[in-house]
Amino acid sequence: MDFEEFRTRGKEMVDYIADYLKTVERRPVYPLVEPGYLRPLIPDSAPQQPDSFEDLMKDVERVIMPGVTHWQSPNFHAYFAAATSFPGLLGDMLSGAIGCIGFSWAASPACTELETVMLDWLGKMLNLPEEFLAGTNGVGGGVIQGTASESTLVALLAARKRIVTHMQAKSPDLEEAMILSKLVAYTSEQSHSSVERAGLIAAVKMRKLPTDEKFSLRGEVLKQAVEEDKALGLIPFYICATLGTTSSCAFDNIMELGPICNSENIWMHIDAAYAGSAFICPEFRDLLNGVEFSDSFNFNPHKWLLVNFDCSAFWVKKRSELVGTFKMDPLYLKHDHQDSGLITDYRHWQIPLGRRFRSLKMWFVFRLYGVKGLQEHIRKQVDLAHEFESLVRQDDQFEIVGEVVVGLVCFRLKGSNELNEKLLKGINKMRKIHIVPCELREKYVLRFAICARTCESKHIQYAWQNIKEIATDVQAGRQ
Amino acid sequence: MDFEEFRTRGKEMVDYIADYLKTVERRPVYPLVEPGYLRPLIPDSAPQQPDSFEDLMKDVERVIMPGVTHWQSPNFHAYFAAATSFPGLLGDMLSGAIGCIGFSWAASPACTELETVMLDWLGKMLNLPEEFLAGTNGVGGGVIQGTASESTLVALLAARKRIVTHMQAKSPDLEEAMILSKLVAYTSEQSHSSVERAGLIAAVKMRKLPTDEKFSLRGEVLKQAVEEDKALGLIPFYICATLGTTSSCAFDNIMELGPICNSENIWMHIDAAYAGSAFICPEFRDLLNGVEFSDSFNFNPHKWLLVNFDCSAFWVKKRSELVGTFKMDPLYLKHDHQDSGLITDYRHWQIPLGRRFRSLKMWFVFRLYGVKGLQEHIRKQVDLAHEFESLVRQDDQFEIVGEVVVGLVCFRLKGSNELNEKLLKGINKMRKIHIVPCELREKYVLRFAICARTCESKHIQYAWQNIKEIATDVQAGRQ
Repeated sequence: MDFEEFRTRGKEMVDYIADYLKTVERRPVYPLVEPGYLRPLIPDSAPQQPDSFEDLMKDVERVIMPGVTHWQSPNFHAYFAAATSFPGLLGDMLSGAIGCIGFSWAASPACTELETVMLDWLGKMLNLPEEFLAGTNGVGGGVIQGTASESTLVALLAARKRIVTHMQAKSPDLEEAMILSKLVAYTSEQSHSSVERAGLIAAVKMRKLPTDEKFSLRGEVLKQAVEEDKALGLIPFYICATLGTTSSCAFDNIMELGPICNSENIWMHIDAAYAGSAFICPEFRDLLNGVEFSDSFNFNPHKWLLVNFDCSAFWVKKRSELVGTFKMDPLYLKHDHQDSGLITDYRHWQIPLGRRFRSLKMWFVFRLYGVKGLQEHIRKQVDLAHEFESLVRQDDQFEIVGEVVVGLVCFRLKGSNELNEKLLKGINKMRKIHIVPCELREKYVLRFAICARTCESKHIQYAWQNIKEIATDVQAGRQ
Repeated sequence: MDFEEFRTRGKEMVDYIADYLKTVERRPVYPLVEPGYLRPLIPDSAPQQPDSFEDLMKDVERVIMPGVTHWQSPNFHAYFAAATSFPGLLGDMLSGAIGCIGFSWAASPACTELETVMLDWLGKMLNLPEEFLAGTNGVGGGVIQGTASESTLVALLAARKRIVTHMQAKSPDLEEAMILSKLVAYTSEQSHSSVERAGLIAAVKMRKLPTDEKFSLRGEVLKQAVEEDKALGLIPFYICATLGTTSSCAFDNIMELGPICNSENIWMHIDAAYAGSAFICPEFRDLLNGVEFSDSFNFNPHKWLLVNFDCSAFWVKKRSELVGTFKMDPLYLKHDHQDSGLITDYRHWQIPLGRRFRSLKMWFVFRLYGVKGLQEHIRKQVDLAHEFESLVRQDDQFEIVGEVVVGLVCFRLKGSNELNEKLLKGINKMRKIHIVPCELREKYVLRFAICARTCESKHIQYAWQNIKEIATDVQAGRQ
């Protein structure tokens, strides 16, 4: 494909994308395919000679689209949102074209420096404590990670390094393996599976603590666990607190947890993967109170802040603690400016070495929406969640589980888990809307998340209509 | 930005990208900016109201471009290539628009299934042993990881899990911490820094073994290390062998290493991040002989196979060993088809949970180039490397270090390291071409890699002309 053909095909693709997004709600939101559907539809090996672009695009409709779960459909209410926006798409196109790999400052200074400044912009939008910002002389700062899972892991590894260094400074004879065997990390029973996984990867104990009636981890519970573990000779060193859990969007009480962590030398990481975007609105900023006690904080603009995946924003108070975890400098990655205080080599901040120019899409989104535009998006989606909540509350057959704080509504038919499982299956089988369940204190619960950027009141009404109809069938034993 | 504005802006962006790539060689390949250059050029916080697209694009030229290291310039010869191609860009645009997160089969069946089949296509291009392919009934298969660093780590974690399970099956009383403290992994002193880093993350000893005169790790060296370590009561369990090291593109002798690993129950992972793309040409396939002994294999199409970053292809012989390392199934991620043998939930294959629809860009590249087109690209670039090699060899002042096997030439001025450091600095200061150094047996060596897709013979001649001129200055003490 030469330059001129790219101009033509690129513009056709832009139109295809606009058409796709404009009409996506007409497609069944959840695909009607069985496992293994795709393999028989295409050849079993790559063509020797080039295929034509026309044939390829025909196959996008024939092979791909029938198997897509349409996350961008306004009828998609499963998991949490996966952000996209036009500015985000445009920024990402440019990033692909520049095609630089920004592992060090020198590998592409703009890639590194725009990222540092965008994380400062975003930190200011959230009103994060000054210590988390890089500024010109800061000791903290932000970085784009791929996912919240990686942020949790990176924080855990930094915490592990910090405690090992600390213990060995006190007792130089202590072997690392001995220390590792005594480490204990905490999180709530409601936290994301990736937290437990981070413990597995880092080979440390991860203790899941019980939550209160609002599914929130409280200070007293942590305090007791720490005391128990210390009495057993273990070394508490890390907690991952969640603001906005995946199951029910519950908020751990970081105002209570924070001071305990600080006095016990426990690294507090806060995972606000989903809910974090809401904190750019002053009316939701209180939910972040207590962040000042934490060592690291993370949320995913790629969930709810209109920046395409992947873009997980991660801040740390002391960048030296993060960098010290990973630093290795082979000659082929060294560069002249390396030891300047102004230099950031982001490869020391993350698991992968390579990294795309992801801050471009943030810059495009922030500038083309403006803070007001982003706040509007959040507020509109929270309003839609409350609209759905009030529909549920008006119906005696249903109950709300937990609280609707931002954009997630947990609800269920009053009655057995079996009934609710049938309801969920019925809904997804209809393919008009798509939702997923969760389990809360042994209750099978349905999660209704406001996802697509284009979701409007009419889609909420449409969804509720569907749910009601299927609920009637289920109650009548017709599903 | 509404649908109609996106159509306009998207098409403008396509033209901007075509123009950028067409004229990139006129820009200085390495930027003339000092650390901290960017921050003063833009406001210190995000705008409240939206900026205009025109202003944003003006700032791309004013703020971003002066700080970009232009990896896509035909005068860029540093590190290794970062692939881009028009088909790759188009596939990625579509992926961004669909905006699905394919962590499980149900989260977007097409995203998972196309990936499995594309990894089979690619495996067949490389003539990988059948055991690595998923097929319809295979027990192996491939997955797209973000980077080779993650592939190395994932393989190491799977190996760690396998050995712990194995040891505990033999002696149920053995505690995991005790086993971990005795594990030892191997790699060569020439392997990438990310291998050592994977050892740090997984909290296992990583022993770096010496290489022969071609910088290749040999069987005898491994055998001796294993015997020494076993005599010390340690448990050898993992090796990361490299095909095409970063410093000099050296190849470990996997034909010798493989049988030792198999008889000692050591997981052999092969990292061919850069060189792997060449194996699609029959004349380079011999370099992969011995892969049949390995447990997992990885290379990066995003380096040299015209698929945009990120796309690191990773295969494993027994998928169950990989999945068993990470498997966790909260209810919100469960789905109906979960237990079908045909189902792949890729979240169990990797560190992050979320993942983009990255196989689309592979499909676009494979179909629009065809295998022949991809082979042509590799062959042309290898020819260019040999063209550069012969220019160096014709000049008595210079020497080639190591062997030119595919697209990397290591060379230096005969003389001191200091002289060569001056040469490198002089070259990069001129900003006409960009290269990076490496260290080989205490020798400071210059690496010349064929990178951009658009690199031609004239760029090789231009680069050599530059190097010669600066070398003359350096020798005369003028630099």
